[in-house]
Amino acid sequence: MATIHVPNQVSFVEDAEVLRKACQGWGTDEKAIITILGHRNAAQRKQIRQAYEQLYQEDLIKRLESELSGDFERAVYRWILDPADRDAVLANVAIRKTCPDYHVIIEIACTRSPEELLAVRRAYQARFKHSLEEDVAVHTKGDLLVALVTAFRYDGDEINARVANSEADILHDAIKEKAFNHEEVIRILSTRSKMQLLATFNRYRDNQGTSITKNLLGDSGDEFLVTLRTAVRCLNDPKKYFEKVLRNSINRVGTDEDALTRVIVSRAEKDLKEIKELYHKRNSVPLEQAVAKDTSGDYKTFLLTLLGKED
Amino acid sequence: MATIHVPNQVSFVEDAEVLRKACQGWGTDEKAIITILGHRNAAQRKQIRQAYEQLYQEDLIKRLESELSGDFERAVYRWILDPADRDAVLANVAIRKTCPDYHVIIEIACTRSPEELLAVRRAYQARFKHSLEEDVAVHTKGDLLVALVTAFRYDGDEINARVANSEADILHDAIKEKAFNHEEVIRILSTRSKMQLLATFNRYRDNQGTSITKNLLGDSGDEFLVTLRTAVRCLNDPKKYFEKVLRNSINRVGTDEDALTRVIVSRAEKDLKEIKELYHKRNSVPLEQAVAKDTSGDYKTFLLTLLGKED
Repeated sequence: MATIHVPNQVSFVEDAEVLRKACQGWGTDEKAIITILGHRNAAQRKQIRQAYEQLYQEDLIKRLESELSGDFERAVYRWILDPADRDAVLANVAIRKTCPDYHVIIEIACTRSPEELLAVRRAYQARFKHSLEEDVAVHTKGDLLVALVTAFRYDGDEINARVANSEADILHDAIKEKAFNHEEVIRILSTRSKMQLLATFNRYRDNQGTSITKNLLGDSGDEFLVTLRTAVRCLNDPKKYFEKVLRNSINRVGTDEDALTRVIVSRAEKDLKEIKELYHKRNSVPLEQAVAKDTSGDYKTFLLTLLGKED
Repeated sequence: MATIHVPNQVSFVEDAEVLRKACQGWGTDEKAIITILGHRNAAQRKQIRQAYEQLYQEDLIKRLESELSGDFERAVYRWILDPADRDAVLANVAIRKTCPDYHVIIEIACTRSPEELLAVRRAYQARFKHSLEEDVAVHTKGDLLVALVTAFRYDGDEINARVANSEADILHDAIKEKAFNHEEVIRILSTRSKMQLLATFNRYRDNQGTSITKNLLGDSGDEFLVTLRTAVRCLNDPKKYFEKVLRNSINRVGTDEDALTRVIVSRAEKDLKEIKELYHKRNSVPLEQAVAKDTSGDYKTFLLTLLGKED
């Protein structure tokens, strides 16, 4: 479930006017921006952008970029975009890093629904005039990443128990032999439906007495292993995966604001409530409290608003 | 351009009534079926199916299957389906053969537009409760096929001449070393836009003094070579590719009705006019004449109707 609080009735024109006023004159009224945008869902934000454009012949996103700065600016920018467009931007930033951030690409490819991933690929092409897989293929190593990004999985409930059993064994054999980039591993992880993969991971545990994720712990310098592990975790239990990303982003020396923002912004309208509960249970601290301790200023206020803190 | 003649005004209810009458009583009135269905486009055929279902609580496709037989039945069945659904069926038949028919899969993956291929993948899932790539991956060898099937290429005009030049050289080096399944070859053919690939193939010819398709002639027992050659031909010049499929289906001992039907049915609403012209030019015989010579009965009448022969 979502964490943001959204009013039932919204006037997009009034919202646009408040935002315009917040951006005018001496200094920016960040509080007003957070109060509006932090309480609007994706469809509403889109309408506000359109109303703003019509009223003032100005792109709201560009205006906000020029008014805001730092982590707060990046968070607002990511939040205000359509989800598919946001993912396209996140993926592009991840790909263009000197050392591409595989995790972000795997996360987008494996935790979004088949239709959502498709929308990301469309948005990526519209924005960057390349296909997502084209850029991933040029900038990364190994075939699994490209295969995951191009996946358009069957999204139904029908599974084949016999296939789950045989493919659990194939995965186990490959992992035992450290063949993390084996073509059969890639085939299974990138083409099977998520329901089928859950069945396969369950059989793996039944057959081996230990989970596939446990069997994938190990050398974090082995890129293929890390890619495979991240993909399995994203496919197997996205909420648990996101909890861990949040935990790592907060617990390290110097908060990883990019990861923190990314997870909160991209899950706030989806399943951040459950992720928050997992976080609390795992860390014995409410996520809001941990975020409040590690962040400050408008950035902190904005994240807490997205986390559902009542004003 | 299309070859079929379609009237401006169509009454779907009347069409359904004629088809019902053609299927009732002693013997089937194949001529009536051809007169109606051979002169309706995909959108109209869909409406006729719906009108028929509403009027008679019966599936028109099932009824036709029970009334017709042989090559004529298969041609009508393929024709009456929505194009994406037809491709899903064609792909599934090709995959399930004891010796999978790679050509059909490559043809569908490489000659359809990115959006059309996507529609095929959707239709495949709806019909078979698997993803297309899932079944291709299980039943075939080599990574190129799966990569081509999952492609969702950028469909715009922007190309990068520098990339075309460097990738033309990469392709040439791989072909020289007979590395037909090289990961760079797969990356280039499966992720680049068709416009970009055209530029690359043109650079190839400029740099090498010979076309990439010429350089890919050779041992037809080498599966990877054949797959690559077919993909390049489909991507480079689909009309020329289809002309050759037609030529081969007619010129061999015993006509290849599956291929003949497939090309005529799937191109009749698209570019069969140009393909016909290419055929005439290349074989010094009009395609209609060649088809008429090699086929007979209702099957022949139906194909000639789709080829645009006036009654």
